Amino acid sequence: MKAILFNEHGPAANLYIGEAPDPVLEPGEILIRTKATSLNRADILQREGKYPPPQGTSEILGLDVSGVVERISEGVSDFKVGDRVMALLPGGGYAELAKAHQSCAMIIPDSLSFEQAAAVPEVFLTAYQALFLVGDLAQGQTVLIHAAASGVGTAAIQLARLQNASTIIATAGSEQKCEFCLDLGATDAVNYKEINFFDVVVQATQNYGADLILDFIGAPYFEANCLSLAVDGRIVSIAMMGGTKVDKANLAPLLFKRGAFIGTTLRSRTLSYKAQLVELFTTNALPYFASGQLKPIIDSVYPWDKVQDAQGHMESNNNMGKIVLTIT
Amino acid sequence: MKAILFNEHGPAANLYIGEAPDPVLEPGEILIRTKATSLNRADILQREGKYPPPQGTSEILGLDVSGVVERISEGVSDFKVGDRVMALLPGGGYAELAKAHQSCAMIIPDSLSFEQAAAVPEVFLTAYQALFLVGDLAQGQTVLIHAAASGVGTAAIQLARLQNASTIIATAGSEQKCEFCLDLGATDAVNYKEINFFDVVVQATQNYGADLILDFIGAPYFEANCLSLAVDGRIVSIAMMGGTKVDKANLAPLLFKRGAFIGTTLRSRTLSYKAQLVELFTTNALPYFASGQLKPIIDSVYPWDKVQDAQGHMESNNNMGKIVLTIT
Repeated sequence: MKAILFNEHGPAANLYIGEAPDPVLEPGEILIRTKATSLNRADILQREGKYPPPQGTSEILGLDVSGVVERISEGVSDFKVGDRVMALLPGGGYAELAKAHQSCAMIIPDSLSFEQAAAVPEVFLTAYQALFLVGDLAQGQTVLIHAAASGVGTAAIQLARLQNASTIIATAGSEQKCEFCLDLGATDAVNYKEINFFDVVVQATQNYGADLILDFIGAPYFEANCLSLAVDGRIVSIAMMGGTKVDKANLAPLLFKRGAFIGTTLRSRTLSYKAQLVELFTTNALPYFASGQLKPIIDSVYPWDKVQDAQGHMESNNNMGKIVLTIT
Repeated sequence: MKAILFNEHGPAANLYIGEAPDPVLEPGEILIRTKATSLNRADILQREGKYPPPQGTSEILGLDVSGVVERISEGVSDFKVGDRVMALLPGGGYAELAKAHQSCAMIIPDSLSFEQAAAVPEVFLTAYQALFLVGDLAQGQTVLIHAAASGVGTAAIQLARLQNASTIIATAGSEQKCEFCLDLGATDAVNYKEINFFDVVVQATQNYGADLILDFIGAPYFEANCLSLAVDGRIVSIAMMGGTKVDKANLAPLLFKRGAFIGTTLRSRTLSYKAQLVELFTTNALPYFASGQLKPIIDSVYPWDKVQDAQGHMESNNNMGKIVLTIT
């Protein structure tokens, strides 16, 4: 099969379409003829050599895939050849053929195209996991979502709105991104280049604070996140794009507010954890794609031979929502 | 009634026995003729002016009490006059009479004296909350308990053993304290003045790490705690006796291990939370005091007119288990 490959870790310029062996199915797995895949930050880190794929998984980039089931392995009962599916992958999405465990695949709602479907699994499952499984977000609570115009951020805004969060404060790096977050359901949006988000949290929640903070930034936001936290609040950290080391980190607010700082990742989780997550998501969120209350947010679509441009666009931080590659 | 009072924040020398108004019962409360109370670190902080009592509670020190029910208020159904009880208090234990909400009181098991019973509520409920309600300790998991010869520490060792934790690593400041922790059920004990506890965790768990760390120390242990954590592990912080500010705190291990740093306190919790905790404890732990599998650990007993000596003994950090005051 053809796949997007690189011979050395480094810049996007190293990526090319070449030949790779077809995936070999294990019991419980399905083979998908790929229609589209989408970009995640992890792809860039992996390409740069900063995020090796988990042991035993494909070296090929790509955590999302949409396409048609081409073949099923023994033990597969949930899918049949010809089904339109989207799947969460540990790797291997940037290819003509991708394999997924059936417990990590979902039937694509009729209302979604393959391009839209490729923008769903990784970011919506990550946001669902962070908000609900790790962050225990309950109806009526207040949420602060950083990098809110990103793929995971736009999914998180929509899921928090669906859960009837009382206040959804979004941070983003431009006025345009802030407007976009408000359109998606954020109740407040902060251009972090202009305003201290802590002040907005205080004002928007009348001093109550955020029950849940979804953080991608890490060290630079640690102090302001702790200050922004409500009593019994949780900071869920899914990335540390701004760095990992905090100078004179003050732990006192976490003690006095009974606060929690919780790191989480999805890719490194066990198959049974992912299966449980996909099941919960399929029951509690997937139906809302059909009704339009949830929607994949697509920034742009590139044919896969333009993958260098697509990754460059993500690296420029100008995207709002997902960048999709069509496999042609 | 007589009570231990102080006119100014400061050293133990400020404490004296004087006259205070009797407690006024609210609906649901019981009045206890006090037989004994016990010391907690919070008493010292409050005396020093560093830990004001929660609004609406007694200014008198004392979070534990044992004694006999003298009177009940309307709505009290669980207790009758003459019952031997022990109770968790928001304050007011250092007095001849103390009031408690019925949901925070427990009948003293027949096998325990009043002195022993006064050593149970605060430390055992704090340890129970930290290990199970906050820390989700499950059977077969590995635990690291700091300040393990303290009141909460000795309770935590016993509760972790009861839960069949596979490994219970205790840290303490002397060989004698370490021996004491091993006798109580710790599988490993570290004199932190001699050995780096991280090395012991690595060795005792064969590199797996600690599923749960019960921490009282704060900043000085932050880095070694993060390094000692197992994947999906939790650091539960109930005090920061060593300080709150961490120089160059590295958050990366919390992300990559999916670890959590969780602050918790008991005194500031709502009555309904405490009621739920007491109910769980009454069902799951209290019966083991009758069978002897759990026991109050008493370092020393002082008559209450020696309260200055008793608090001085706690301040010297030489106690192993609880310091009890008898109210005579």
